[in-house]
Amino acid sequence: MRWNKALIPTFKEDPSDAEVISHKLMLRAGIIKQLSAGLYTFLPLGWRAMLKAMKIIREEMDDIGAQEIFMPSLNPIEIWEETGRAKDMSEILFTFEDRKGHRNVLAPTHEEIITHIARDEIRSFRDLPQIWYQIQNKFRDEPRARFGLLRVREFLMKDSYSLCANWEQLDEIYNLHERAYRRIFSRCGLKYVVVGASSGLMGGSASQEFMVPSDAGEDSTVFCEKCGYAANTEVAESIPSEGSWVEFPGRKKIHTPFLKTVDEVSKFLGVPQNQMLKSLIYVSQKDGQPIMVLLRGDHQLNEEKLSRYIGGTVRPAHPEEVLEWFGVPVGFLGPVGVPKNIKILADKAFPIDKQFATGANEEDYHIVGWKLSEIPDVEFGDFRTVQEGEKCVKCGAPLSVKTTIEIGHIFKLGTRYSEAMGATFTDVDGEQKPIIMGSYGIGIGRILASAIELYADENGIIWPITIAPFEVIITALDVTKSDVVDVAEKLYADLRSAGVDVLYDDRDERAGTKFKDADLIGIPIRITVGRKVAEGNVEIFVRKDGSRQDVRVEDAVNRTVEIRKKLIEEIENKV
Amino acid sequence: MRWNKALIPTFKEDPSDAEVISHKLMLRAGIIKQLSAGLYTFLPLGWRAMLKAMKIIREEMDDIGAQEIFMPSLNPIEIWEETGRAKDMSEILFTFEDRKGHRNVLAPTHEEIITHIARDEIRSFRDLPQIWYQIQNKFRDEPRARFGLLRVREFLMKDSYSLCANWEQLDEIYNLHERAYRRIFSRCGLKYVVVGASSGLMGGSASQEFMVPSDAGEDSTVFCEKCGYAANTEVAESIPSEGSWVEFPGRKKIHTPFLKTVDEVSKFLGVPQNQMLKSLIYVSQKDGQPIMVLLRGDHQLNEEKLSRYIGGTVRPAHPEEVLEWFGVPVGFLGPVGVPKNIKILADKAFPIDKQFATGANEEDYHIVGWKLSEIPDVEFGDFRTVQEGEKCVKCGAPLSVKTTIEIGHIFKLGTRYSEAMGATFTDVDGEQKPIIMGSYGIGIGRILASAIELYADENGIIWPITIAPFEVIITALDVTKSDVVDVAEKLYADLRSAGVDVLYDDRDERAGTKFKDADLIGIPIRITVGRKVAEGNVEIFVRKDGSRQDVRVEDAVNRTVEIRKKLIEEIENKV
Repeated sequence: MRWNKALIPTFKEDPSDAEVISHKLMLRAGIIKQLSAGLYTFLPLGWRAMLKAMKIIREEMDDIGAQEIFMPSLNPIEIWEETGRAKDMSEILFTFEDRKGHRNVLAPTHEEIITHIARDEIRSFRDLPQIWYQIQNKFRDEPRARFGLLRVREFLMKDSYSLCANWEQLDEIYNLHERAYRRIFSRCGLKYVVVGASSGLMGGSASQEFMVPSDAGEDSTVFCEKCGYAANTEVAESIPSEGSWVEFPGRKKIHTPFLKTVDEVSKFLGVPQNQMLKSLIYVSQKDGQPIMVLLRGDHQLNEEKLSRYIGGTVRPAHPEEVLEWFGVPVGFLGPVGVPKNIKILADKAFPIDKQFATGANEEDYHIVGWKLSEIPDVEFGDFRTVQEGEKCVKCGAPLSVKTTIEIGHIFKLGTRYSEAMGATFTDVDGEQKPIIMGSYGIGIGRILASAIELYADENGIIWPITIAPFEVIITALDVTKSDVVDVAEKLYADLRSAGVDVLYDDRDERAGTKFKDADLIGIPIRITVGRKVAEGNVEIFVRKDGSRQDVRVEDAVNRTVEIRKKLIEEIENKV
Repeated sequence: MRWNKALIPTFKEDPSDAEVISHKLMLRAGIIKQLSAGLYTFLPLGWRAMLKAMKIIREEMDDIGAQEIFMPSLNPIEIWEETGRAKDMSEILFTFEDRKGHRNVLAPTHEEIITHIARDEIRSFRDLPQIWYQIQNKFRDEPRARFGLLRVREFLMKDSYSLCANWEQLDEIYNLHERAYRRIFSRCGLKYVVVGASSGLMGGSASQEFMVPSDAGEDSTVFCEKCGYAANTEVAESIPSEGSWVEFPGRKKIHTPFLKTVDEVSKFLGVPQNQMLKSLIYVSQKDGQPIMVLLRGDHQLNEEKLSRYIGGTVRPAHPEEVLEWFGVPVGFLGPVGVPKNIKILADKAFPIDKQFATGANEEDYHIVGWKLSEIPDVEFGDFRTVQEGEKCVKCGAPLSVKTTIEIGHIFKLGTRYSEAMGATFTDVDGEQKPIIMGSYGIGIGRILASAIELYADENGIIWPITIAPFEVIITALDVTKSDVVDVAEKLYADLRSAGVDVLYDDRDERAGTKFKDADLIGIPIRITVGRKVAEGNVEIFVRKDGSRQDVRVEDAVNRTVEIRKKLIEEIENKV
């Protein structure tokens, strides 16, 4: 492509509304252009990178025997009602009426449609297993679209679905997907980790996420450097710090006026923070009932863990609700003497036989000296968020917590969808059984964003060559000089004949602008055709390591092809 | 791909709800599966054909220097209000509110978004021309979704847009598109014609459609076999039949009780049908005003021509409206003595100096003896539909009228969008001028449907090899026999190594079923591996011409590759 007639709008300044590196650079380098919140056009450079990532994805999916299909984005809402997700996902579903008054959904994922196809077309265990996939636009009514391609309202996803006759088949295909995903992300040049994850609104028995560690990430992942344990904080476990424990001579109610926070009360009472019992009130979205959750004062609640335990989403109670249900304001709550109808959950990190200090359910009062073993009807579970420095449950080494970008997610769905929608098959024994399903997704735009987050430097993007919009850029300095143009044109033609993906910067711009732009858009190899042409030389510059070499004009194509091969191999060798 | 584990649901019976051949066969051959009205999933066979058509499209678009991009389907409605199309296209636009209360459009086409990008990124004549294209889902709230992929509510389209500094550039790029489209459709193996067309809701100065003649088509196209003139009836012209004309001694009002139709009145009065003046009442959707349109009694109105003349959509008046405005029922209307405020249009095929017979604007009465030249304020134009057998305006030969499928449409848009949205550039002379635009579309699903309509026979689909889901099918007869399976497996492996796209029918089914299915799904070359394997032979069958030949097992790959090459060349030679 010739830059002069290409749509590659580059900008020197960071856009004011972009916070993370990939968002800034994608806008500055003419990769994407915003239409409105969470909606972007892929400009030619961005789309070329997307097409390369999609090609890699298709190759690896085809390799595990997946069959590509293409499902409608418009879905009649009735099919989403069959599984209950018309309601469960209503927060992010775009829905609307058509001219005939029928209600439609813009699909944010396709389990329902897959199950609809399966219940019609799958008859027997002989038809199984099957893997179906598509690459298609997904739509989600995101409350907080932000960070460029990281959180959007419309995005391209590779989603695949497996249909199995038994759990062994599911395990096998789930593992095939894990391997294919590792190959896909490695071939795209990414560094990533595979972590245990929560299945959230998908449901199912197990899931793993593919995560790229990055400050721009919105997920939080727990890592053990020693044994390799890694899990999303939504499911991560750890050995909590031991804490220190004082002994109270007996039960006591203490006047604590104006003291509400764990920190304030702990200091006032002289009780370690870990011995304070934090009492939080949540509301189940399902039935509107209040739930009290008890945690060590130095621990934090993980809402996703709580939701999973409850089997539905939750929200913190409003202060007015707390006042109505308990008769006291937030800050003086505790598990002693709460109304019978209120469910009490306690995080298992609080020892059942240790005395605690907590609110007295009376304004301006706290109590000390009770134990959890003395509270009736408490259910214990894992409700806390793992914190940096806590110990690994597998090897005892200290854990670290990092933000990560989720680029892939694989789920063992089981029979949730097939049972709800009646997708059954006749098994070997002649019995009708629900199909056992899996679901597997890759956010393709996030591959691009992650690559930029991982490798960009102060000068701009550094694309892994396998997903670079172009492999090579020819930078012709002073396009008014015929010897420069002659060499550049010949290199452009010869490199294209050699099957290299070349961008030819034939613009009549200053050298400084051209170099800056080439660095900014991050093309792996730059060939500079300038004054040295008089001596029969051009310069080859490698963006990744900054290395430069002068080569004879007649050797330039071969040398470029060699460097390109080396860059590709560096990535392939890690696959 | 192995059929045994593939999603290829075939059916023996025609589906009851499918009317046209391509719809029936696509359902029966497992090409598509319906989700609801006008919404289809492409199953593996269908999607493979789509991917092949898309590859051809991309190659040809890239070849004319078009840059591929990808725009959001979700558009804020404000951008559609800038051009007035939020209103003009409201009948087919899906619109809805998001969680933040903003109104969104699901884009049925992308002129507005292109113009939005252009007004930001195009500065100077030096940036022009540009061609941008995408392959993307489009959404239309079709009132009459039907005929399978021919009229749907969501469909994949290649849409491209050109931005030019002057009309010569537009002509050049429009012609490049015409050539690229010819190559694309030819390479997809289609027979088509390029016809003059109406620009409809797109606006602009000129447009042409690429049409596949087919009984399943919903367009009607006028052809001249002799000189090659071809145009959509929406714009087609012709020399009308001469008709015969009687002379009336003078003006006269005649009692015509119960006679309303042209036919009835013409017989009663003894006046040739062509001399009857048919008076139709339409309503402009823009201002709700009535319009009277006058035509020869033997001619038919073309609503699209009328709309274009008015500059907005029209609808026939309701009988009650006619009664209110004229005081008489439909059937007795005429242009003599109509209220001043009613616009009168007359088709130019009615001679201005011939006496006519028409309604008297009085119930049960007609009049004769007036001439159009005597009616004040009549505007003349082309409002009639060309009819079979009328003469070509270019060469005088008789015209034929056929139904056709529109597979592509190219438009010279001009400055309609750039003016409305302020997309300007600085020209050579330093002046700000609106960008001159073009718009070009291909319905990709219709390529598949057209190929089926064109070539299918009583046994099923016959794919042109260039868009066939597979080039070759290996039909193994009796998969319980090891010699059959050994040969079939080896052929499957060797053909794939030779770069051939192979489907291996390894199902444990009867020979008859396998042959029927292979014919139905229309794979161009079938290799039958059966009893003849004992003698070292397999049979190669060509679906298109029904030819069969026995070849030695060891020659089968080479022979298949040769036949494949020949089938491809037969198509390429027509490009």
